[in-house]
Amino acid sequence: VRPSLLLLLALPALAAPRKPTQAPDPAATAALLLGQALSSDEAYEELRELCDDIGHRISGSPQLDAAIDWGMRRMTEDGLAVTLEPVDVPRWVRGPAKLELLPSRAGLAARELAILALGSSVSTPPEGIEAEVYVVSSFDAFDPARAKGKIVVWDAPFVGYGETVRYRGEGASVASRAGAVASLVRSVTDRSLYTPHTGNQRYAADVIPIPAAAITPEDAATLHRLQDHGSTPRLRLQLTATTEADVRSANVVGELRGRERPEEIVVLGCHLDSWDVGQGAQDDGAGCVTVMQAGALLAALPQAPRRTVRVVLFTNEENGLRGGKAYAAAHASERIVAAVEDDTGAGAPLGFSADLRDAKGDPDPAAFARLQAALQPQLGWLRPVGAAHLEAGWSGADIGGVVENGALGFGLEHDMSGYWIIHHTDADTFEKVDPDLVRRNVAAMTVFAWALAETPELLPAVQP
Amino acid sequence: VRPSLLLLLALPALAAPRKPTQAPDPAATAALLLGQALSSDEAYEELRELCDDIGHRISGSPQLDAAIDWGMRRMTEDGLAVTLEPVDVPRWVRGPAKLELLPSRAGLAARELAILALGSSVSTPPEGIEAEVYVVSSFDAFDPARAKGKIVVWDAPFVGYGETVRYRGEGASVASRAGAVASLVRSVTDRSLYTPHTGNQRYAADVIPIPAAAITPEDAATLHRLQDHGSTPRLRLQLTATTEADVRSANVVGELRGRERPEEIVVLGCHLDSWDVGQGAQDDGAGCVTVMQAGALLAALPQAPRRTVRVVLFTNEENGLRGGKAYAAAHASERIVAAVEDDTGAGAPLGFSADLRDAKGDPDPAAFARLQAALQPQLGWLRPVGAAHLEAGWSGADIGGVVENGALGFGLEHDMSGYWIIHHTDADTFEKVDPDLVRRNVAAMTVFAWALAETPELLPAVQP
Repeated sequence: VRPSLLLLLALPALAAPRKPTQAPDPAATAALLLGQALSSDEAYEELRELCDDIGHRISGSPQLDAAIDWGMRRMTEDGLAVTLEPVDVPRWVRGPAKLELLPSRAGLAARELAILALGSSVSTPPEGIEAEVYVVSSFDAFDPARAKGKIVVWDAPFVGYGETVRYRGEGASVASRAGAVASLVRSVTDRSLYTPHTGNQRYAADVIPIPAAAITPEDAATLHRLQDHGSTPRLRLQLTATTEADVRSANVVGELRGRERPEEIVVLGCHLDSWDVGQGAQDDGAGCVTVMQAGALLAALPQAPRRTVRVVLFTNEENGLRGGKAYAAAHASERIVAAVEDDTGAGAPLGFSADLRDAKGDPDPAAFARLQAALQPQLGWLRPVGAAHLEAGWSGADIGGVVENGALGFGLEHDMSGYWIIHHTDADTFEKVDPDLVRRNVAAMTVFAWALAETPELLPAVQP
Repeated sequence: VRPSLLLLLALPALAAPRKPTQAPDPAATAALLLGQALSSDEAYEELRELCDDIGHRISGSPQLDAAIDWGMRRMTEDGLAVTLEPVDVPRWVRGPAKLELLPSRAGLAARELAILALGSSVSTPPEGIEAEVYVVSSFDAFDPARAKGKIVVWDAPFVGYGETVRYRGEGASVASRAGAVASLVRSVTDRSLYTPHTGNQRYAADVIPIPAAAITPEDAATLHRLQDHGSTPRLRLQLTATTEADVRSANVVGELRGRERPEEIVVLGCHLDSWDVGQGAQDDGAGCVTVMQAGALLAALPQAPRRTVRVVLFTNEENGLRGGKAYAAAHASERIVAAVEDDTGAGAPLGFSADLRDAKGDPDPAAFARLQAALQPQLGWLRPVGAAHLEAGWSGADIGGVVENGALGFGLEHDMSGYWIIHHTDADTFEKVDPDLVRRNVAAMTVFAWALAETPELLPAVQP
């Protein structure tokens, strides 16, 4: 417990001494937690440590190990019972990369273009490859006959992350199937200052893996214009990416045992790994310090919530999801009643999404309506930070496994207007994070976690 | 003359056949030029050629030679009498550069940071240098005693280009005087997506040149935070920049001889060179195609304007201003009555600045007021494109010499809200240029040039 919390707990109106056996007033406790969250920059300071002292932290890196140590130490200081749950994770190493646009006429120099290999990409031969480009805007427009022997450039306009990221994820496989020698994707973003975005891609089982990388929207546009005006631009590409043997990593789990129903568990999740660029400040450092601070504030209450709360810093979300899968498997027999993920940046909190599905796995509007009605009083506690809104939607990648196993899945939703432009780039850095918004996100997460962990009979009504 | 111009000229209402001796109606001709400018994408298409087929073009590069050939060819096609005026320019070659933040603890890897050497920077020794950083926010806060043996990082917040660029221009000299081993400047921009900005710097005569480079605002902030929190970050820096022997270059001059007072000259200027990053689309490709198209439209009139118009594509603005200086010296005995520069991007036209000074070189409000009153009718012609505003201000770098020699100096002013974030970066590329705004800028420049070249007795009233 930190001094600032002790100070707030000493305020007589909010936290008058009460006997341990007396049930806490849930609304008053929610107000206390809200006030505490909005009064502290501890989460912001933790994010600074993670970004500056450790930096980016891809699966299998020493930086991720350092982040795991840091998370364990920080949550222990916060009064949680911390365990490490080992998980083997992939170790993909980017290595140096070089991309050049060859000159269109004698006497001019080659132009070096920015490039970031995509996760799990194979390398080129050491001497690189050289080929003409075939630029195309969509899978529909793709002409396999034009791709053979070419470097395919997917210049898909950004219409939304979920839609456009398909070219990053599947582009190399589609190109390889047509005999292309490499696949380059325009970075998945709505605006660019010549900033390439990395991210994962998956080779389909039936294809020969070909090198896969992201280029900037600027260069994708240039190549496209050159092609449109009758040039046949040639690129020289060298990638040295390698996939090495799996490495032992861990989910970091900080537990606060429930005072009445310890066997019922509420998970607060984020992922501690990042891509190997920038500082992973918003993806997902901000989510981690938010759930960590929520755990700290709940642990500092005079009485623990009714249910057990577990803060889980998942490993390997970005290029494998091994942490989330391992957690779901290891805890399949427990009663995880709800899970909340924070993995969409550090913008202003907007509310929560709830992922309710019927037996067939389809969205279940009736169940959602019951949940929304039942949660009305608790959502009211979130009004001061603008997070009282509940809507049907996706929860989060890391908690996908426990949601599949029956937990109610929630996601803390943020204003994402500044998110995609820095996502998976060197620009995902600490100075873009607003400390006031961190406080508001901590408030939203803490109060919502309190609602889920304390409300007596809410959840069975809608659980499958 | 291009087909689209012929078509417009054939419109009877605007360009009815008239005898060569009959004076043109200035307002009707202004309306014709405006309509032609707004109806054509020729300037935009020229900008695409310059950006895509040639790309960036620093002084002394083969790309700049190619751009000069291109400008000469294009202006000849436009009906101007084109000459090349030779100028020797510096040849500074960036070479590879590498900057690493050394890890704060054993087991972690060094972090590679983006870097762009500043123009005229010297190199490091081949093995590089390694030193602690001293981060400081301003010249006022700079403590020379803390800089000795350090890599100084100028983390000056962006308050405006003119003010903040001093740290780029003078930072290395100030640091060197205090015994620093290198100088890094936070890129001069108001927003960043991890995009470094290059630009020129000058070593003062009394200092030992030390390596000088720009880093991203993100990394400047990180280094600053590390220092503020008690760390002493160490950097490893390798620069291989060299200054080679001067190279023969040229100003490209396209002339349209005046029909009545050919000895009175109106210069329309831009610079054809760029930094060695991006495509130089807005700095200053857009300015060049704008003045070129203005020249083309004036050349296509049935009668030339009263005065001579010269479109000058200056060389070596960025790192030497040799083109502007050479032009002013070579033409000092001519009567250049006015000069207009377009070198502030491709944003919407806002009007023109007029640089009127008294004998002591101070701004001359009385002369400006006379000019503003005298130009009212002509400015009215610019109202349809929002460029009717005239204000006292700076004209342009390339035409500075001819303005000093007595020409009225003007600058086409643009909305610069999107300019500084891409200025001198790899993000200054064609796709960010709006074709509609190019048309409006061409219209503003053409009509203003027409006003200056045609209005009989306007200029002597305010000229020194």
